[in-house]
Amino acid sequence: MNSFEHLSQQFAKTFNQPQFPATPATLYQPNEYFLQIGGKRVRPVLCLMGNELFDDLKPEAYEIATAIELFHNFTLIHDDIMDNAPLRRGMQTIHTKYDNSTAILCGDVMLVRAYEHLSSVQSPYLTQLLHLFNTTARQVCEGQQMDMDFEKQDNVSQDDYLKMIELKTSVLIAASLKLGAIIGGASQRNQDNIYQFGLNLGLAFQVQDDYLDAFGDPEKFGKQVGGDILANKKTFLLIHALETANAEQKLQLEEQLNNNYPNKVAKVLQLYRDCKVDDWALQLKNTYLDKAFNYLEEIAVLSARKQPLLQLAEYLVKRDV
Amino acid sequence: MNSFEHLSQQFAKTFNQPQFPATPATLYQPNEYFLQIGGKRVRPVLCLMGNELFDDLKPEAYEIATAIELFHNFTLIHDDIMDNAPLRRGMQTIHTKYDNSTAILCGDVMLVRAYEHLSSVQSPYLTQLLHLFNTTARQVCEGQQMDMDFEKQDNVSQDDYLKMIELKTSVLIAASLKLGAIIGGASQRNQDNIYQFGLNLGLAFQVQDDYLDAFGDPEKFGKQVGGDILANKKTFLLIHALETANAEQKLQLEEQLNNNYPNKVAKVLQLYRDCKVDDWALQLKNTYLDKAFNYLEEIAVLSARKQPLLQLAEYLVKRDV
Repeated sequence: MNSFEHLSQQFAKTFNQPQFPATPATLYQPNEYFLQIGGKRVRPVLCLMGNELFDDLKPEAYEIATAIELFHNFTLIHDDIMDNAPLRRGMQTIHTKYDNSTAILCGDVMLVRAYEHLSSVQSPYLTQLLHLFNTTARQVCEGQQMDMDFEKQDNVSQDDYLKMIELKTSVLIAASLKLGAIIGGASQRNQDNIYQFGLNLGLAFQVQDDYLDAFGDPEKFGKQVGGDILANKKTFLLIHALETANAEQKLQLEEQLNNNYPNKVAKVLQLYRDCKVDDWALQLKNTYLDKAFNYLEEIAVLSARKQPLLQLAEYLVKRDV
Repeated sequence: MNSFEHLSQQFAKTFNQPQFPATPATLYQPNEYFLQIGGKRVRPVLCLMGNELFDDLKPEAYEIATAIELFHNFTLIHDDIMDNAPLRRGMQTIHTKYDNSTAILCGDVMLVRAYEHLSSVQSPYLTQLLHLFNTTARQVCEGQQMDMDFEKQDNVSQDDYLKMIELKTSVLIAASLKLGAIIGGASQRNQDNIYQFGLNLGLAFQVQDDYLDAFGDPEKFGKQVGGDILANKKTFLLIHALETANAEQKLQLEEQLNNNYPNKVAKVLQLYRDCKVDDWALQLKNTYLDKAFNYLEEIAVLSARKQPLLQLAEYLVKRDV
């Protein structure tokens, strides 16, 4: 059984090699640039952990993990274009450093490269792996489309927002674990449980992310607090506040959304507190976390095998913030 | 043995059904719109013909053919963004009718959908099919990148242009045939020959396309003659003219390229004729066509089985124009 840190180092050893041919350099060099911007590589390591939960690590798990990380980077490259994002982790995005056409094509070929790794897996489970990977890829596209649609809508329901987060974020976390479980020879029932663990962990993580953007300690959070509020971003907090505020609070909230007063962040935070959105969000996060742990508990393997996943979950989603 | 027309009708029967789920409609409806713009569906039918060259049509061939056509449409959607093309077959392109973000995501999910069909094939050949499909998909991206690079370059060599055309256009035609041949149980040698037939047929077709844009009968050609010349597009003709013109002709050609005189098309056509680029192009086309037919001849099956492919090749690429 390996820790997240160890698996992460192992994965980096293979992944940090060049992932693309040398030519045409105008196509592949931007992709190598983008990959070296880095990231926590959570998803591929979840795949390796999903394998190790059930059996010794298979060499094929690294191919699947690589496919997952390349897929994830493909979505980032295209999302950055759609979001007009100039920077990612402080580095220029591809469409900013090069141009939109290059970024579109770089994303495309990154996705194809993901399939090259996945297709190289020699296993009786190949069809099953492909099926889950395809379904997940399509769901992530659906989630991104819903996210873009929501930007243009005045009202988004809690249910629709939840569905969007599930598709855009959670299914890939869930699928990463399950793809590893499949190659690890897990039973259908265990596969379902690890998938649900990932799905709920992803939701808990997103609630926490929304919460920290508003109420987090800027020192610990590492990014500007209140960014979502300034951008009028639909989040768990804003949607819940709009659904539960009384008439007077709702008017005040809408006034803040329709303007950019200098004290907007402080005002909205006060309204959130008045509506007890902060307590509600912490509770919601814990609900998802509890559900996740329940599914993990249901998995029929020695409990020692679950330790790395438990530790990772607790590292990703904290109970106390 | 079925004719192109018959297979084309058969393919249309399944392909003209909705290819995507109903929701989110903002993602899938643009894709259904794009697919009903239509096209000759040459590539998927080539796949069916590749199968029938060696064995009775397998149901899996339709899945592969659908994957190929969806892949082709994915490239069209993204190329249209990169080329700023407002129309395709007289209909608005997705990025024009909707917006760039929608078009990027529609293309992405079209590609994933292609893989869903390919992955559904239950066959001992699945890994082989995936390998060829992946390689081809990556090559097509490389070809598109080279094409975009050439637009910014003053000089493009004949060899580089040929490589670009091979990657952007020919490999998909070749792979369509070979994917069909694989599912039809063809030997490795026969697979190689049908691939080379497709590769050379694709090159012959592109030379003809470049030729017709300059020297074609506008009535028959169905689009504006001289479009490539007006756009200074690098074509077989322009590149060969620049490589073979004498100093005086080269100066005149470059003057035309650097300006947009009202009689530009006529002047450039005259220069092409002076350099005998027209004769050269017809010869080049026939060279590729001869090579293609030689490869077809080498394929070890009863010659009656080759008739539909021969007829299609002669329909796509004419000897006399």
